[in-house]
Amino acid sequence: MYDLIVIGAGPAGITASVYAARKRMDFLVITRDIGGQAVWSAEVSNYPGYQFISGPDLVARFEELLRAYDSVVKENERVVDLRKIGTKIIVKTDKGVYDSRTCVVASGKRSKELGVPGEREFKNKGVAYCAICDGPLFAGKEVAVIGGGNSALDAALQLMKICRQTYVINAMPVFTGDAVMREKVEHNSAVTVMNNTQVTAIVGDVFVNALQIRKDGMEERLSVQGVFVEIGLMPNADFAPDLEKNEQGEIRVNCRVETNVPGIFAAGDVTDVPEKQIVIAAGEGAKASLGAFRYLASHKF
Amino acid sequence: MYDLIVIGAGPAGITASVYAARKRMDFLVITRDIGGQAVWSAEVSNYPGYQFISGPDLVARFEELLRAYDSVVKENERVVDLRKIGTKIIVKTDKGVYDSRTCVVASGKRSKELGVPGEREFKNKGVAYCAICDGPLFAGKEVAVIGGGNSALDAALQLMKICRQTYVINAMPVFTGDAVMREKVEHNSAVTVMNNTQVTAIVGDVFVNALQIRKDGMEERLSVQGVFVEIGLMPNADFAPDLEKNEQGEIRVNCRVETNVPGIFAAGDVTDVPEKQIVIAAGEGAKASLGAFRYLASHKF
Repeated sequence: MYDLIVIGAGPAGITASVYAARKRMDFLVITRDIGGQAVWSAEVSNYPGYQFISGPDLVARFEELLRAYDSVVKENERVVDLRKIGTKIIVKTDKGVYDSRTCVVASGKRSKELGVPGEREFKNKGVAYCAICDGPLFAGKEVAVIGGGNSALDAALQLMKICRQTYVINAMPVFTGDAVMREKVEHNSAVTVMNNTQVTAIVGDVFVNALQIRKDGMEERLSVQGVFVEIGLMPNADFAPDLEKNEQGEIRVNCRVETNVPGIFAAGDVTDVPEKQIVIAAGEGAKASLGAFRYLASHKF
Repeated sequence: MYDLIVIGAGPAGITASVYAARKRMDFLVITRDIGGQAVWSAEVSNYPGYQFISGPDLVARFEELLRAYDSVVKENERVVDLRKIGTKIIVKTDKGVYDSRTCVVASGKRSKELGVPGEREFKNKGVAYCAICDGPLFAGKEVAVIGGGNSALDAALQLMKICRQTYVINAMPVFTGDAVMREKVEHNSAVTVMNNTQVTAIVGDVFVNALQIRKDGMEERLSVQGVFVEIGLMPNADFAPDLEKNEQGEIRVNCRVETNVPGIFAAGDVTDVPEKQIVIAAGEGAKASLGAFRYLASHKF
């Protein structure tokens, strides 16, 4: 029976773990990967402490701190069920079952699918969801980024440096992402911005070779070898049926990052905290662990 | 008329500024110093991104990011009044008056005084409130740290490396600070822990030469050349009479770090957010600026 189980090892989960270690809690981290979505960022320039750092580099620094505390981390392990029975929190994974007194859910988000014909068929055959992970596979080629928010802009920033031409296909009339990123993307000659444009299908033979798009009622075919779907994210919270969620499926937390189940806290992008930012997720992760510590101190087990 | 004025440049204020710059807001930072209380930490080992870093070094990294965005920073300037008249927020300092549409109060805290005879008389003549700033002046000498929480432990960790003997004088029966720090302090031969002990006076001639202490009803004199008062902090919020505060004088904020005055946000240790941590303050600073940005977008001026 652990004091605490942390689910996820992105910025929120790692910070929660560091704080748990500092409080000498007996805890376990269960995670599919290290870094979560932070790994997907080509360039992080708003995490205080670093001026410019790539997502993978920042994650490596976070991981160093996690490892410095001898934390027990179960990697490549997927949580399939989380519930509380009596005073015991039971975490079931694809590899085992663990009991704990408290839990911090920091399982983050995954990419939303576009939902058009060809998307699933060509997944990993030209259709990708992470520019920084898969971008290098498309060096010198023509690619499309689908979306208009910060993730789409970040993907475009990454791809425009290595691809011959990057089309940014935005369903909206203007980008919704940060001005700084928007300007960099719009002023690059290797980028073509297509606003008010819908993708209706992804086509190819063995690999993707084109997009079917619609603009002003006209259908058109755009030749590309890669498609990066950057239209948003889904919370990884299906494994926790007892936790209250909002309409987007995000776990509801109060100011102290408590969920509706006493002893279960949530932090980072899986929650309904509106701002999805590395530094905010880290801060909420720290709050979650300190909350779990207080919970343990004030309850008898 | 600025879009935003940020008051303070500790972790919360700097992060708020970085986010304001990224959103291309027209903003101004007014602050007495750079780094706030973060400068006072000998060793920060719970800020994700760094394994071990001194407070001043971490602050230097934060400052680099602030400067990278060409932020306008008014240093050595003290805010004396903040209020909102109509839709205009007016910030009065010891050097001028500034108008803004929104404001982030991130003015942090200052050290609490012990309130015993001799304390004010010997201030800067042996009585200090920042071990990392003033510790080196007492190399090879005998010093006392007064307090039992994390700030006292951090001060002791710093001083035990350079002073001949460090007495930690704690009014409580045990330390309330982190286990990791507690153990390091308790197991060091250059440290003497005195629990259940009150300081009743600070004595000396030109400089401090002793403490008057009381333990188990017995008065005693302890020979020291330096006294570090580490008994807690007071919020710097007196300049904002219209903001709602809790009993400790901390500015009340909701989950979105909004104060009771629309358009005025608060972040970091000056607020009633219970956890006082660098990473949490930084996260709240980001929230505050993003909140101000949303406020500007949704109001007509």
